[in-house]
Amino acid sequence: MPGEADALYRLLAHADATIAKTFDARVAVSGDKPFLIWEGQRISYRDAHERIKGFAGGIGSIAAKSGRHHVVSYLNNCPDALWAWLGTAYAGGIYIPINRNHRGALLEDLLRRAAPDVIVTDAAGAEVIADKGDYLLLVTGGSDLDRFSDPEAFRPAAIDPGDTAAILYTSGTTGRAKATRLTHNQYCRNAARLVEAFDLRESDVFHNWLPLFHLAGQVHMTMTAVIAGGTVALFPGFSRSRFRSDVSETGATILCGFEAILNFIWSLPPEEGEAGGSLRVGIFAGIPDTLRRPFEDRFGMVLGDNYGMTEIDPITVPGPATPAGSCGIASRDVEIAILDDQDNSVSAGIVGQIAIRPRAPHIMTSGYEDDDAATLSAWRNLWFHTGDLGMLDAAGYLHFKGRLSGYIRRRGENVSVAEVEAIMNGHPEIAECAAVGVASPVGEQDIKLVVVCAPGQSLSPPAIRDFAEREMARFMVPRYVEIMDALPRTDVGKVHLSLLTHLGDRVWDAEAPV
Amino acid sequence: MPGEADALYRLLAHADATIAKTFDARVAVSGDKPFLIWEGQRISYRDAHERIKGFAGGIGSIAAKSGRHHVVSYLNNCPDALWAWLGTAYAGGIYIPINRNHRGALLEDLLRRAAPDVIVTDAAGAEVIADKGDYLLLVTGGSDLDRFSDPEAFRPAAIDPGDTAAILYTSGTTGRAKATRLTHNQYCRNAARLVEAFDLRESDVFHNWLPLFHLAGQVHMTMTAVIAGGTVALFPGFSRSRFRSDVSETGATILCGFEAILNFIWSLPPEEGEAGGSLRVGIFAGIPDTLRRPFEDRFGMVLGDNYGMTEIDPITVPGPATPAGSCGIASRDVEIAILDDQDNSVSAGIVGQIAIRPRAPHIMTSGYEDDDAATLSAWRNLWFHTGDLGMLDAAGYLHFKGRLSGYIRRRGENVSVAEVEAIMNGHPEIAECAAVGVASPVGEQDIKLVVVCAPGQSLSPPAIRDFAEREMARFMVPRYVEIMDALPRTDVGKVHLSLLTHLGDRVWDAEAPV
Repeated sequence: MPGEADALYRLLAHADATIAKTFDARVAVSGDKPFLIWEGQRISYRDAHERIKGFAGGIGSIAAKSGRHHVVSYLNNCPDALWAWLGTAYAGGIYIPINRNHRGALLEDLLRRAAPDVIVTDAAGAEVIADKGDYLLLVTGGSDLDRFSDPEAFRPAAIDPGDTAAILYTSGTTGRAKATRLTHNQYCRNAARLVEAFDLRESDVFHNWLPLFHLAGQVHMTMTAVIAGGTVALFPGFSRSRFRSDVSETGATILCGFEAILNFIWSLPPEEGEAGGSLRVGIFAGIPDTLRRPFEDRFGMVLGDNYGMTEIDPITVPGPATPAGSCGIASRDVEIAILDDQDNSVSAGIVGQIAIRPRAPHIMTSGYEDDDAATLSAWRNLWFHTGDLGMLDAAGYLHFKGRLSGYIRRRGENVSVAEVEAIMNGHPEIAECAAVGVASPVGEQDIKLVVVCAPGQSLSPPAIRDFAEREMARFMVPRYVEIMDALPRTDVGKVHLSLLTHLGDRVWDAEAPV
Repeated sequence: MPGEADALYRLLAHADATIAKTFDARVAVSGDKPFLIWEGQRISYRDAHERIKGFAGGIGSIAAKSGRHHVVSYLNNCPDALWAWLGTAYAGGIYIPINRNHRGALLEDLLRRAAPDVIVTDAAGAEVIADKGDYLLLVTGGSDLDRFSDPEAFRPAAIDPGDTAAILYTSGTTGRAKATRLTHNQYCRNAARLVEAFDLRESDVFHNWLPLFHLAGQVHMTMTAVIAGGTVALFPGFSRSRFRSDVSETGATILCGFEAILNFIWSLPPEEGEAGGSLRVGIFAGIPDTLRRPFEDRFGMVLGDNYGMTEIDPITVPGPATPAGSCGIASRDVEIAILDDQDNSVSAGIVGQIAIRPRAPHIMTSGYEDDDAATLSAWRNLWFHTGDLGMLDAAGYLHFKGRLSGYIRRRGENVSVAEVEAIMNGHPEIAECAAVGVASPVGEQDIKLVVVCAPGQSLSPPAIRDFAEREMARFMVPRYVEIMDALPRTDVGKVHLSLLTHLGDRVWDAEAPV
């Protein structure tokens, strides 16, 4: 029913959309369609709706400590994570998913900040959560959730599109995680922009290996499915070894991820008929220009660029003719500017900080919870400052140039991490690398380069340094070189910079005394 | 030297302008020109520069309690207020002028919030300031300021265009005054937009009766003069009786104010040759359509519209063909939108909240000091919400429609204060009136109308009520009517609403038991 779906989409794209309105509208049109595939089981939109209202009814039956209910989930991907998230949204509560990999002091700090009324976790998670605070603990796998669920008690909550639906802790590689508020409308509107830009359809099956405690798992691979009327194929995580069977068993058509995932898939041994598989569209942040076309040809799918962050995503989507090196054009809900360090807008072709202004209300974070100073700093001069560097070309395409903090200050020069890495990646025997700044005995920083050699290669640090001296400005040449088997990464695939800044025996120093 | 002045203006309009850079550049071009006329004396730009550097040197010689120096002035208009303001700017300090009319608990609260290192006041002011805190008290009129002044000790401060130059307490008629931070660049850039829009010139003399503790006295009538290369004719306040002699003795060409000032001047007995006087341009907020042309003809001057507030001013300036009822078009440094109560932008012709986004950095307040929550509330969805109602017409002209808070909530209806007042002002025997909401025994509010009768008239409350019943919707008709000789006003001419909300013997009640 593409006509009905289209009408639904127009409804959902409206500025006053909330998660509950959106899911309700989808159930009315597609109640019998599978919303979810999990471990071979299919759950229809109608059945999912019942589970969601059940969770919402359960929440409504308990008292909130203050204001709206705070519901923490400490779960890996599983259907209960969906019911908890969407049920909390239906109840008008605030969903606070915590990365299931956290533990110890950091986990305690996040839990304390979340001030939960309810925590949903698995049996192992319940053991990890040492502090038995003043909340209801629901453990999955037993009868807790069934007993909690109360669809009869559910009453629709009064929800404004700008109300907070969730708080997501940004997985910063440096500094304390910021508690980013996400609005109801943001979930719907951001997903609607992706549906539109990537032409997502009722027939699509969304390969959702992305953690549901992060934005992309929720927006890119779940809310998009709801809006398009497709099906979420949920997985506990990305498995290179099971990737082919996961796709073939679910008929997955949509894939989402980042560069490392493309490389994992590309490194699979080629198989007959790959280009004729079900996969149709890839939504990716950071598609290497050299891999794009070969990957598309080999797997018979289209890769499209997407740039965004927890605060708002998408910021960019594919344009009609995205050039090499670009991550797309501005989503039609945002205005993008490139700002210099005084917040003046710079011309096309000049690199500066990527900043955005929303073109509609409630389509991005309303700020950082309990940290107005951080919100105001990000909002100075009424621009949202992404903390990323970029360049807009003359045609309006955005070119991502690394984190703003990705500059190393060396003897009065600002050295771009992105530039050093790009040059070093040009070495045929380097698989990947990362440049970081380390404190210099002469003040400011020295440059350390961590290199992962290409399979079967074993470059020496002096040979790497020789290449750098040949290929880049003197002030950019790394002093320190370390060879690693793989770059340490966070669970969303970002390089864990703080694990790279050590020096010592395994780190070669070009200036070491003989 | 219009060529040189033009070059200077281009320099000053640059995004990195600061108050010191601007004044320095003016002194270099116009050192011998009079900057100030005060009680018949003329002070050149060069001499003013020495006084300013003297004050700055004095500040630099004392220790700041924390960070930048906080300099409070508690002064009526006088040259020392200028040296303190501009000297503090040169020293990189923060100038905090407090309305000289405040006293008692409110004054104490403002002083406590200002945390001054230095207070400048007159002898009577020093007596009013009861608390002798940890600051240097400088009293004008004796030798304090001469001893404090130290031009030799002055060293130019490192000042960024976005640094705070001053904190102004907004003279809210309700609620606690907000401490609005003004940036260095804002003073220069806002004044530059006025110079440009009103074609202000080197030959202009700025009739500055406006309090220097408010924005217009500083920006509209002083920084404009510096940028244009004109002269500030400073007065202690607006005097209807001395208006003609003030103008003729100083050769004033530029006048600034609000509707009541136009009425005061208009009410002067006509004189021969008025149209040939020196006055050339009037910068006014709220020019009645009926008065505009007659006033211009009678005094031989052009009246131009201006809309703004402490946070940023100008927001609007005269357009090429400003229609009746409009307060002009957007200054080229701002984008204006009209937002509904969900922050959706509405179409031309629809009334909503006036909101702006700056088109350049640092051209408006950086926020409210020690009140991030108020700043974020004003900045929600990355728009600065003015708290005023307005409408943009199809040609982009802004029509001011009153304060957003100027709605009275009566039995489920939002009654526009502006509409009630406009209708009642249509009564030929009403000179002016104000509608306010007062608590209703049945919940929400009832409407009270305070009326000032036209000279020689003495309308009765029942007659006023009869007129209202004839002319407006039933739900808008005031329940209470009070006759006053004049509306109580704040020192910048706004009606003091909190002094109108009382009930009692002198207030007629249409629903009183017989």
